[in-house]
Amino acid sequence: MILSGGTGTRLWPLSREGYPKQFWPLVTARTMLQETAGRASGPDFAAPVVVCNEAHRFLVAEQLRAAQVDGARILLEPLGRNSAPAIAAAALLLRAQSPDAVLWIMAADASIKDTPALHAALDRAVAAAKVGRIVTFGMKPTTPETGYGYIEAGADVPGAAGVQAVARFVEKPDARAAEDFVAGGRHLWNSGMFVATAATLVAELERHAPDVVRAVAAALEGAQGDLDFVRLGAEAFRAAPSISIDYAVMEKTDRAAVVPADIGWSDLGSWASMWDVAAKDAGGNVAHGPVELVDSSGCYVRSEGILTGVVGLKDTVVITTEDAVLVMPRDRAQDVKLLVERLRAAGRKEATEHRRIYRPWGHYEGLIQGDRFQVKKISVRPGQKLSLQKHFHRAEHWVVVNGTAIVQRDAETHLLRENESIYLPLGCVHRLENPGMIPLTLIEVQSGAYLGEDDIVRIEDTYGRA
Amino acid sequence: MILSGGTGTRLWPLSREGYPKQFWPLVTARTMLQETAGRASGPDFAAPVVVCNEAHRFLVAEQLRAAQVDGARILLEPLGRNSAPAIAAAALLLRAQSPDAVLWIMAADASIKDTPALHAALDRAVAAAKVGRIVTFGMKPTTPETGYGYIEAGADVPGAAGVQAVARFVEKPDARAAEDFVAGGRHLWNSGMFVATAATLVAELERHAPDVVRAVAAALEGAQGDLDFVRLGAEAFRAAPSISIDYAVMEKTDRAAVVPADIGWSDLGSWASMWDVAAKDAGGNVAHGPVELVDSSGCYVRSEGILTGVVGLKDTVVITTEDAVLVMPRDRAQDVKLLVERLRAAGRKEATEHRRIYRPWGHYEGLIQGDRFQVKKISVRPGQKLSLQKHFHRAEHWVVVNGTAIVQRDAETHLLRENESIYLPLGCVHRLENPGMIPLTLIEVQSGAYLGEDDIVRIEDTYGRA
Repeated sequence: MILSGGTGTRLWPLSREGYPKQFWPLVTARTMLQETAGRASGPDFAAPVVVCNEAHRFLVAEQLRAAQVDGARILLEPLGRNSAPAIAAAALLLRAQSPDAVLWIMAADASIKDTPALHAALDRAVAAAKVGRIVTFGMKPTTPETGYGYIEAGADVPGAAGVQAVARFVEKPDARAAEDFVAGGRHLWNSGMFVATAATLVAELERHAPDVVRAVAAALEGAQGDLDFVRLGAEAFRAAPSISIDYAVMEKTDRAAVVPADIGWSDLGSWASMWDVAAKDAGGNVAHGPVELVDSSGCYVRSEGILTGVVGLKDTVVITTEDAVLVMPRDRAQDVKLLVERLRAAGRKEATEHRRIYRPWGHYEGLIQGDRFQVKKISVRPGQKLSLQKHFHRAEHWVVVNGTAIVQRDAETHLLRENESIYLPLGCVHRLENPGMIPLTLIEVQSGAYLGEDDIVRIEDTYGRA
Repeated sequence: MILSGGTGTRLWPLSREGYPKQFWPLVTARTMLQETAGRASGPDFAAPVVVCNEAHRFLVAEQLRAAQVDGARILLEPLGRNSAPAIAAAALLLRAQSPDAVLWIMAADASIKDTPALHAALDRAVAAAKVGRIVTFGMKPTTPETGYGYIEAGADVPGAAGVQAVARFVEKPDARAAEDFVAGGRHLWNSGMFVATAATLVAELERHAPDVVRAVAAALEGAQGDLDFVRLGAEAFRAAPSISIDYAVMEKTDRAAVVPADIGWSDLGSWASMWDVAAKDAGGNVAHGPVELVDSSGCYVRSEGILTGVVGLKDTVVITTEDAVLVMPRDRAQDVKLLVERLRAAGRKEATEHRRIYRPWGHYEGLIQGDRFQVKKISVRPGQKLSLQKHFHRAEHWVVVNGTAIVQRDAETHLLRENESIYLPLGCVHRLENPGMIPLTLIEVQSGAYLGEDDIVRIEDTYGRA
């Protein structure tokens, strides 16, 4: 089970609510979601259950498809309610089919370098789960980190080699306590991965968080199958308290256990941890994309395309995206959220949305906004089709630059090849489709007095948006 | 006389060879060239002579026109040869017409806050020029600056109140010498402004730098009038040594004098001096454009459009342009040139060119480059006309989004209004014209296997480029 509901604000401006960090290739060429799903592939694993925000449903489906993960079930949350309701939903769903099924719960956005060590720890955790335990993965701390919760390991669990009971959970400690923890050897980082049977999880949720179970059970009852998705009942789910599984269950249950593991784990929780996990040059710099460093050390400099030059910097983070730049000392990396909050309060769309906007059929991005015009690049995946629509305030010119388009314009249908164009006068009813085997790319030039996204009347839609 | 030949590399990425700092509005809403020309406007001044690189001729003309500076003569250098040849060209040109004419020589890229004080110093300088002196403006130093040359003032010049002989010129001093200079009160910053008659300048150039005069005189003899420009003979001008007026004349002549002045001068020679001259917030920050500062102090943060956020920074410069970002400590501002040299060596076009490219008829900018296509925004000034041209490798779609266009396509002529488009197939002979009273803006979508700027055959051109 993959929890993919995070918003990853601390990796702004790369990660934003509209396209958060689990959907980005942060460490390898695969996205964090793909990496996570890949850890549970093969004959020993069932297809994953992914819980995500409704807004990300096509992203999750498309990334799993691209990574050849078949048969996934995607549970859609109408809004984020932290981890306990999400886990409850998956556990209730699976208990109904197979109460003894062992669930491996993972966050979609962690980096783990040593997969064999992970799988060895998983085997130990599964053995403990089968005797009724809820097992967390405890990471051997390498630095006195004050940003993580810690687990104090207790007595060995009988019948499960290498698994210990949880003596207690410790909230984010101060610096001195953290140093003692690293020196003492009994404290472990809480990684947010869990293993338990569906029956155990539901039983402990019912015991310690009955209001969560009640709301989520109602949301599952009211769930609607929608293409490949299970859409949780919105009203019922909204009634669930927003609470983490740690608070709701782990800190209260007597079934908590921990499997200590040394697997090269990072939660990639900030740009500082991105620097931690990356390969560095002789000056301790990480450079990604078109960047040029002069006389700098200890820096993390990442550009998604715009040339980024730094001179004489030390221990500084510089992130350049198409529409936003972030600069800060590495040791202030946690404070990105202050900036994002301020941008959000100021109504800056860059706080939450990227320039490229994903839709069920593909994506589009604004190239320029001018006086009474704007230009977009639109990409439609093979076989996909936009809604049948019209606009009251704008006319559009479409120029096909890659692939083939079928364009319906009022009563006519046109086939457009590369380097052909069509004009859509204000008020005409139109629809765009990619009938081909390769992506369709077109340039849209809009003219009109009002060019907001909300000037659209959807008459019919394949994706249920009409 | 305005020297506008600089490349302003130390204000990269805003200032680049293709569009250097004198053409940017750095301090006020007017560009530095317009500010400079504005200091010499009114009944006391003749129209300016501007010396600039040939590549900037339309920029200079357009900015002067926009600032309502009439009658300017624009001398075009085929390549930069430092200040002595540029000054020699203007002095020779003016001596031929009026040997007693007093020249006021100014760099096009300095900031001067106190214009009345400047004009008072100018009056004193003119009096000294009329008795045969070459007068520099000496700025009272406010900080022990090691980046400037200094002038040691000597005895008073008879017959010119407030003007002193130059005792000696001092190259950029070390920190201790600079502190002594500030404390002593006899040393002044060399501002690079001069006042002298044409006859005096030519006489002293002939005495101390005869090879400069010989080359420049030949270049003037071979000069061609070209629209509003005087194009210096390329081969002759190239033979002039590349040398500053300080080295060539001022350090050798016995006519050198200095008028001390306190006028709020800055050469805007680096991002650190841009911070110096700007108004600051309570934390000592300068913020320009869409920027957001959290818990930062002493920073200069400037964006030309892309949202730029900084957290916890001290004394740092962050510059964001459409296609390049620069970050450095303020006290490393001189070292931008190391970065630009490295980018140039790596063949990065951002080292020298902006995304917006200026042409005699207006400008264009690339919006996106894709696989076998690219999109540009083209702006044509009223009454202007591109060359009659054709391409062998690309077809073009033009969509008019503002204004009116006349498009010639082979034998046809079309009038295009806002929201109308035209297709230009590969190989057709075409021409674009703005017949209207407002700027014409169009979106050009190019399709083809090769999309380089050099795929153009110019059949006829208003600006002599065919």
